[in-house]
Amino acid sequence: MPSISKKGNAMPQSPIRKLVPFAENAKKKGTKVYHLNIGQPDIKTPQVALDAVKNNDIKTLAYARSEGSEEYRNKLVEYYKKHQVNVTANNIIVTTGGSEALLFTIGSITDPGDEIIIPEPFYANYNGFSTASGVKVIPVISKIEDNFALPKIEDFEKLITKKTKAILICNPGNPTGYLYSKEEIQKLKEIVLKHDLFLIADEVYREFTYDGLEHTSVMALDGLEQNSIIIDSVSKRYSMCGARIGCIVSKNEDFINTAIKFAQARLSPPTYALIASEAALDTPQQYFDDVKEEYVERRNTLITELQKIDGVKVANPKGAFYCVVELPVKDSDRFAQWILEDFNYNNETVMVAPASGFYSTPGEGKNQVRIAYVLNKKDLIRSVEILGEALKQYPN
Amino acid sequence: MPSISKKGNAMPQSPIRKLVPFAENAKKKGTKVYHLNIGQPDIKTPQVALDAVKNNDIKTLAYARSEGSEEYRNKLVEYYKKHQVNVTANNIIVTTGGSEALLFTIGSITDPGDEIIIPEPFYANYNGFSTASGVKVIPVISKIEDNFALPKIEDFEKLITKKTKAILICNPGNPTGYLYSKEEIQKLKEIVLKHDLFLIADEVYREFTYDGLEHTSVMALDGLEQNSIIIDSVSKRYSMCGARIGCIVSKNEDFINTAIKFAQARLSPPTYALIASEAALDTPQQYFDDVKEEYVERRNTLITELQKIDGVKVANPKGAFYCVVELPVKDSDRFAQWILEDFNYNNETVMVAPASGFYSTPGEGKNQVRIAYVLNKKDLIRSVEILGEALKQYPN
Repeated sequence: MPSISKKGNAMPQSPIRKLVPFAENAKKKGTKVYHLNIGQPDIKTPQVALDAVKNNDIKTLAYARSEGSEEYRNKLVEYYKKHQVNVTANNIIVTTGGSEALLFTIGSITDPGDEIIIPEPFYANYNGFSTASGVKVIPVISKIEDNFALPKIEDFEKLITKKTKAILICNPGNPTGYLYSKEEIQKLKEIVLKHDLFLIADEVYREFTYDGLEHTSVMALDGLEQNSIIIDSVSKRYSMCGARIGCIVSKNEDFINTAIKFAQARLSPPTYALIASEAALDTPQQYFDDVKEEYVERRNTLITELQKIDGVKVANPKGAFYCVVELPVKDSDRFAQWILEDFNYNNETVMVAPASGFYSTPGEGKNQVRIAYVLNKKDLIRSVEILGEALKQYPN
Repeated sequence: MPSISKKGNAMPQSPIRKLVPFAENAKKKGTKVYHLNIGQPDIKTPQVALDAVKNNDIKTLAYARSEGSEEYRNKLVEYYKKHQVNVTANNIIVTTGGSEALLFTIGSITDPGDEIIIPEPFYANYNGFSTASGVKVIPVISKIEDNFALPKIEDFEKLITKKTKAILICNPGNPTGYLYSKEEIQKLKEIVLKHDLFLIADEVYREFTYDGLEHTSVMALDGLEQNSIIIDSVSKRYSMCGARIGCIVSKNEDFINTAIKFAQARLSPPTYALIASEAALDTPQQYFDDVKEEYVERRNTLITELQKIDGVKVANPKGAFYCVVELPVKDSDRFAQWILEDFNYNNETVMVAPASGFYSTPGEGKNQVRIAYVLNKKDLIRSVEILGEALKQYPN
């Protein structure tokens, strides 16, 4: 029998997806499962985007341009301008989700064996994309005690080797909800300039910043033109995760010209989703104001309720819609499975994402879970109540 | 300045896309360009697929399942059954186009430095996907004189090394239009079983077989269950290249379980396109009969007209909608550029794909082009007339 590759064997399983069969079994037994595990918001997609697709007059569903149409990229230029990022259409490559943006970026700037430094905990799929490209993730640990602030510059510098090609941040952060300050971005600028590295920022949660704080893009800083790359996506911004449209933004011409070759090999991003994404750029500001207000209320509700439970520690997220929660359990993977498999509270239970999948350092995050506050307030209150009851009953 | 990776530098530029600026310039000068260069048919997408998207009632455009919904995969099972491929939904992973199906496949079965044997000329983007995965394409040459039939078994066997992981065929073939016979597929079966290799078949043109010939899938043969993998796509079958939906089909469980991890890392295929693709499975047979009739007429027209030109040699395609044409020129890359840049015939010209991009052996295919017969008969006749005139005037 022919064999699977080392790379294939090394590919991590999604920390969320591996619990899915247990959730499905629970549902089959008649248990209602509240999904706190995945960044799939219940927020409605802007009507203007949905309508554009419903009213399309396509007769032949043709390939789009590999890098996205001129029209769409020109509209993106206007969008970025409002966010202090001044670019041209030539600085943008439209991709199939933020996932592909990251894959093309890693492919363009790394060879197998190269290293990328990432503050940990980080978005679990960074592990997957790195493994697929043969690249080593070098974690720099941020701590729940510090609210997951950027680790010290020295912590980064001692990890930099000849193999280091980039520092990758997610801002605001998944899974931490941490929002990097302008000063922190400036510190990163100093490091990457000093060591000739790329600074890749996954900014897909740009709009989701709370408590009056503002997002600072890596491309809003002078002097970083040749080093900075934005990974972006319409998934969260317009609550259209299923579109699968994202983009790469960079002023580094060599990089863009390289990434375009990856884009050409896969021909084109999905055409229907491009129609939705282009129309979504006309979403009225009120939509974002309402969504932000909703998320702030959800966050406040979630944090307040969680803090009522004995032994629970939670960092206060300033952006995105996740938080990392420390639970009084030894092994959150087992706990997350147990609440689906062996527990219910009046025929209801919750699904959470064990945090170990968001770390690459073995043993880290074992007593943490990620909670996405993508449910309405009532469901969030009920979910935390169930979680509290589960912790009481759990045979630790 | 941070640098581009070796891999990024090695990524080939699409042989078609590099001519695009010249075609755009020609159009700006008022020249009409007939596109014989790309597999983008003018055929209408089935109405049932277009309607399903127009009538969708999505409120939140959510992620689809990473491997595609149970419903869609179950409908695919019925589709494959009609094509002598007996599988279950668990043997299928839905992907973002055939491109992604191939990328996940290569990732699952090869490590950097491994080799895949591919009959040459082959679909140009196989080079791109191989480079992106650090895999070496080992070409086995098929010849225009033999109508691009499968090379001899001995030709394959002398190329097999410890690094060889798979043989990849495209059937019917892009760019050759060659349709492998059942006997040829059986020969490949013997080789892969003897050497413990995977046999990957890109069968996206399955429906496009002419002159009463039938397509033989690698998964229709007994005994190949653990070795065979189908790469598929809705792009050509339903003339919906812009959907970006494909799939992987295999009965090898280890392989499928590995490929799913790649699928999970990129979250989901595009949701709108899934709606269109699922509905497209209800396309009436008449649609395919009409399309096939149309392509046969186009092929006959194209071949007849091409054979009228002095010094032109063309293999007779039995499937897909491409043919490889030998021209009386030394360097078809230069010729293809010249007809766009320095030539027009009553303000009209044609765009063809130089064949060198479909070979990995240096120097092969230099006097060949690929022509896609994706235009109506009238335009095809006119295109060949222009091509003939260009050959007369070309300063070889």
